[in-house]
Amino acid sequence: MSDPHDRLRLVRAGIDTYQQPVVYMHRDCHVCRSEGFTALTRVLARSGDREVIATLNVVVDDHLAPDVAALSEAAWKVMDPGPDPWATFSHAEPPVSTTALRAKVFGRQLGYDDFLALMRDAVANRLSDVELTAFVTACAGERLDNDETIALTKAMVAVGERIDWGGGPVLDKHCVGGLPGNRTTPIVVAIVAAAGHRIPKTSSRAITSPAGTADVMEVMAPVTLDIDAMRRVVEREGGCIVWGGNARLSPADDLLVRIERPLDFDSDGQLVASVLSKKVAAGSTHALIDVPVGLTAKVRSAAAASSLEARLLVTAQALGLQLTVLRTDGSQPVGYGIGPALEARDVLSVLRNEAEAPRDLRNRALEIAGALLDAVPGSGPGKGRVLARMLLDSGAALAKFLAICEAQGGFTEPKTAPHTRPVLANRTGRIGRIDNRRVARIAKLAGAPGSAAAGVDCRVRIGDSVRSGEPLFQIHAQTPGELEYAFGYATANAEVFEIRGQDDSGDIPWHSGGSMKS
Amino acid sequence: MSDPHDRLRLVRAGIDTYQQPVVYMHRDCHVCRSEGFTALTRVLARSGDREVIATLNVVVDDHLAPDVAALSEAAWKVMDPGPDPWATFSHAEPPVSTTALRAKVFGRQLGYDDFLALMRDAVANRLSDVELTAFVTACAGERLDNDETIALTKAMVAVGERIDWGGGPVLDKHCVGGLPGNRTTPIVVAIVAAAGHRIPKTSSRAITSPAGTADVMEVMAPVTLDIDAMRRVVEREGGCIVWGGNARLSPADDLLVRIERPLDFDSDGQLVASVLSKKVAAGSTHALIDVPVGLTAKVRSAAAASSLEARLLVTAQALGLQLTVLRTDGSQPVGYGIGPALEARDVLSVLRNEAEAPRDLRNRALEIAGALLDAVPGSGPGKGRVLARMLLDSGAALAKFLAICEAQGGFTEPKTAPHTRPVLANRTGRIGRIDNRRVARIAKLAGAPGSAAAGVDCRVRIGDSVRSGEPLFQIHAQTPGELEYAFGYATANAEVFEIRGQDDSGDIPWHSGGSMKS
Repeated sequence: MSDPHDRLRLVRAGIDTYQQPVVYMHRDCHVCRSEGFTALTRVLARSGDREVIATLNVVVDDHLAPDVAALSEAAWKVMDPGPDPWATFSHAEPPVSTTALRAKVFGRQLGYDDFLALMRDAVANRLSDVELTAFVTACAGERLDNDETIALTKAMVAVGERIDWGGGPVLDKHCVGGLPGNRTTPIVVAIVAAAGHRIPKTSSRAITSPAGTADVMEVMAPVTLDIDAMRRVVEREGGCIVWGGNARLSPADDLLVRIERPLDFDSDGQLVASVLSKKVAAGSTHALIDVPVGLTAKVRSAAAASSLEARLLVTAQALGLQLTVLRTDGSQPVGYGIGPALEARDVLSVLRNEAEAPRDLRNRALEIAGALLDAVPGSGPGKGRVLARMLLDSGAALAKFLAICEAQGGFTEPKTAPHTRPVLANRTGRIGRIDNRRVARIAKLAGAPGSAAAGVDCRVRIGDSVRSGEPLFQIHAQTPGELEYAFGYATANAEVFEIRGQDDSGDIPWHSGGSMKS
Repeated sequence: MSDPHDRLRLVRAGIDTYQQPVVYMHRDCHVCRSEGFTALTRVLARSGDREVIATLNVVVDDHLAPDVAALSEAAWKVMDPGPDPWATFSHAEPPVSTTALRAKVFGRQLGYDDFLALMRDAVANRLSDVELTAFVTACAGERLDNDETIALTKAMVAVGERIDWGGGPVLDKHCVGGLPGNRTTPIVVAIVAAAGHRIPKTSSRAITSPAGTADVMEVMAPVTLDIDAMRRVVEREGGCIVWGGNARLSPADDLLVRIERPLDFDSDGQLVASVLSKKVAAGSTHALIDVPVGLTAKVRSAAAASSLEARLLVTAQALGLQLTVLRTDGSQPVGYGIGPALEARDVLSVLRNEAEAPRDLRNRALEIAGALLDAVPGSGPGKGRVLARMLLDSGAALAKFLAICEAQGGFTEPKTAPHTRPVLANRTGRIGRIDNRRVARIAKLAGAPGSAAAGVDCRVRIGDSVRSGEPLFQIHAQTPGELEYAFGYATANAEVFEIRGQDDSGDIPWHSGGSMKS
C-alpha cells in the first residue's frame, strides 16, 4: 500500500472511553506532523464509506508505532474495519450545528431546523463531549420554552428509528424517576398484556439511579433484543420489557443522557423531549407518565409537578400522542429492595401474590395499570382498576409475565448477594423523613447496578416506630470492599432516615396522590 | 509490597490527553472489580502526600497488565511518582462546588464563596471537563452580572500565585484579541521599559488565534521563565515578555480557556475575569486594555465595546487596579504577517525603523505606549505619545528590546518558511471588507502557531485597488500538505477579501479609533 501524508493503518487500541470516539496517534506520526494535529484535535477518519469524528490523544512513548492510528472501542465499532484496514485523516470541519449551539448558549430561541441540525450532528458523533455539554447546559433550567420542547422532541424522533405497529392502540408507561425501588413497569406490562392490549415497553438502564427497569428485568430475562426480536415477542405475548438502547429509538437521547448523568441535572424541556421522543419512536399511541412528587424525588413540589405536567401534555398533543399524567407520592422508596435483583424479587413477590409482598408496590402498579386501561378507547373511567386487580389476583398477570420472559429468551430466578450488613437505628422514635437521594447513593456505593445483587433492603416506612439498635435496612454487596464502602457512607450520614423522638414536632411530608389526564 | 484491594502500581501511559488527567486500568483489574469502576468513573488516586482525580478509561485487551494503573501525562505530572510507585484508588467524592455549579446552571446569582469553591476545585483537578464546560456555558452570554464578575475575578486571583513587586507603579497592557497580526506588545514593552518604567509582561500562547504574543516572542527569545527568572529580567531591564502559563498566575484561567477554546465562545464576564485576574496576579498597578472593534473582531460593535469597557472599569476599580481602556479599529489585520515568525519579523521591522515597516503596527504601538505613559502618576496627558515616538525613533526601544531578549536567554532572528504560495485576486476592484476570522483560519490551516514560520503574509488593506490575477496574500507553510490544505480553503472562500467593482456601493466599515480612561 502507498503511504501518502494523510493515510494510516488502523489498529484497535482496546481502550473503552464509553461512547466518545478517541483516536491515538504517535507524536512523531507523519499525519500528526503534516496535518498539525495536537492533543484534543477533532479528527475526521475515513475508510471506504465509513467515517468517524474522534478526539485525538497523542502517544508520546513507544507503545504505539508512528505509522498506525489506534481507535478506542467506540471509534472501532463505528469504523468496523476489515482485514488490513487503512483510513485517511483530516481536520474535522466545525459541525454545521455550531451556529445553533452558539445561539442557544447566548439565550436565543431555536426552531425545528436548528434542533434537527444539532441532533443530526450528535448522532453522527460530530459533536464533542464539550459541545454536547454546552448544549445540555444551555437548555437546563427554564431555557427551553414549549415551542422549543416540541421542536426538540420532533428532531430527536426524526434522527432515529421509528416502529410502526400497524393500526390500533399501542400502550406505554414511564416514570420520571427519582424514587428508589419504584419498579412498577414489569407488573404493569404483565397486567396490561394479560388484558389483551399491546404494550411494547422499552426501558433504560440506570442513569443516576441504582437500577433502571432494564437492569431489573435483565436479572429475570434477556433484555438486549433488536427491533425484530422485540416485534416477535409482542406479536406472541402482547407485551415485552426490553432495553431501549439496542433499538436505536431516539439515539440522540442516549447521547444527551450520557452527559446529563455525571452532571446530575436536566430540565423540564429536556426531560419531556427525552421521555416523549422515546414513546413516539416506539410507536406508542397511549402513554401514562408516573410523576412521583417529594422533597427528595426528582420533582420536589406540587408547583414543579404542575409545570412539568403542562409541558408533557402540550408536547404530547403536538406529537399526536394520547397522554395521561399520574402524580404519585414521592416521599420515600417503594417496595423493599433497591438494586436490580432486590427489586426483581419484589416484582415477583407482587406477581405471585405472596403474603409478604410490598403493599405499596402492588398498589402503585394497580393504580398505573388501571389508569392505562381506562385510557384505551371504549373503556369507562374507573373500570380499569377493577380489571387490573382481577388480572393480578387471579395469577393471569404472573402467567403473562413468565410467558414474556420465556419469549425474550427464558426466565431466571434472581440471585442474592454474598455479603450483607445491617445499618442500625441510632435512637428510638418514629421515622420522619427519608432522603431518597442518599438511600440511592448507598445502594450505588454497594455496587448497584453494576453488581446486580447489590443494593439496599429496607422495610421501614415513614411513620414507623423504631428502637435504637434495631436494623433500619440491610446493605447487600458482591464484595467486602463495596459492603464496607457503602456501610461507611451510611453510618456517616445517619440523617438519611430522620428518626423523631416523642417531643419532636414537624409535618409528615405530603404523600397523597392525584391524577390528571389529557 | 502487599496488594490490598485498593492498591495498584503506577506506570506511565505515555498518552497526552492535554490537561485532563486520565487513568487507564484493565477491565479485569482487582481495583476496578472491588470498587465497581467503569469507563469514565471519576477516580481518586493517592500516593504519599500527592493525589489526583482522574477520569477512568478501561483497557479491554492485553496492552495493560491487570495489576497496574497507567497515568496520562497530565496525571503523571501531578503525581510525580518516584521509583517503584504505588497508589490507592477510590471513588472521587462529588466536589464541594457541585452545589454552586448547579445553582449557576439553574440561573442563580453566585457570591464570592461559591466562585472560590469552584475555582479551588478547578485548579485541584476535581472538576471534570463536563463540569468545567457546564460552568463556562452557564456563565456565557449575559449570565454573570458585575458583582459576580468581581467575585469570580477575586476568586481566580485567590487560587493562584501573586507577584509582589514592592512599591511603585507596575505597568501592563493587554489586547482582547480577535485581530490577526496585532502584535504591539513587544514594541510597547520595549518603549515603556526604555522610558524607565517597570512592565513585567506575561503573555498567553494562541487560544483560538494563529499566534499568541508568547508564540511570537518565543521566535526571538526564550519565554518559558519561572517567576524568579522573570523577576531577575525585570530587575535588570525594567521589562520582560514571558509566557504566563509557567508562572501559575491565575491557573484557573488556563483551565477555563482550555474549555472555551474548542467552543469558541466566552462572555464579557469571563473575559473580564480572565484578563484582570492575570493582571492583578502579576502585581500590576496600571494597565491598559486594547479593545479592537470591528464586524469580524472579537468585539463587533460600539455598543458591545461600551458594555465591555464599563465592566472592565468597574471590576478593575473593585480590585484596586488603575485601568485605561483604548478602543481601536478592528476592521482588518494589523501589520503584514499573521503567524509567530511573520509577526516577529514585523515587530523587528518597526523597532528597527525600517522604511518598509508596517505603519499601522507602528502607529498602534505608539498610541498604546503613549496612553500607558500618560497613565503613570506625575505625567501629563498627551506627553506620553511624544515620549514614546522619541524612544522608538532614536533606537532606544530597539536597544531595550534586544537587552530584554538577552536577559531572557538570548536573541534569535526569525526564520522563514520553506513553502509559500500566493492567493490571487479573482477580479479587479477595491478591497471592501476583510474577514479577520477566516484570514486567521487560513493561517492556522497553514500550520500556525504549531509551525512557527507558517502563516499568512498580507500587504493589501481596505480601500486598496487590486487587479484580477494579482496576489492578495502569500501563504507560508512548513510542509507541502499544510500549504495545499490552507490554499484549498482560501480559494474556496474567496470572499475573505471582498473586492468591490467600480459600480458597487457600500460603506467602508468603521475604522476610526477612540479612547476612554478610568
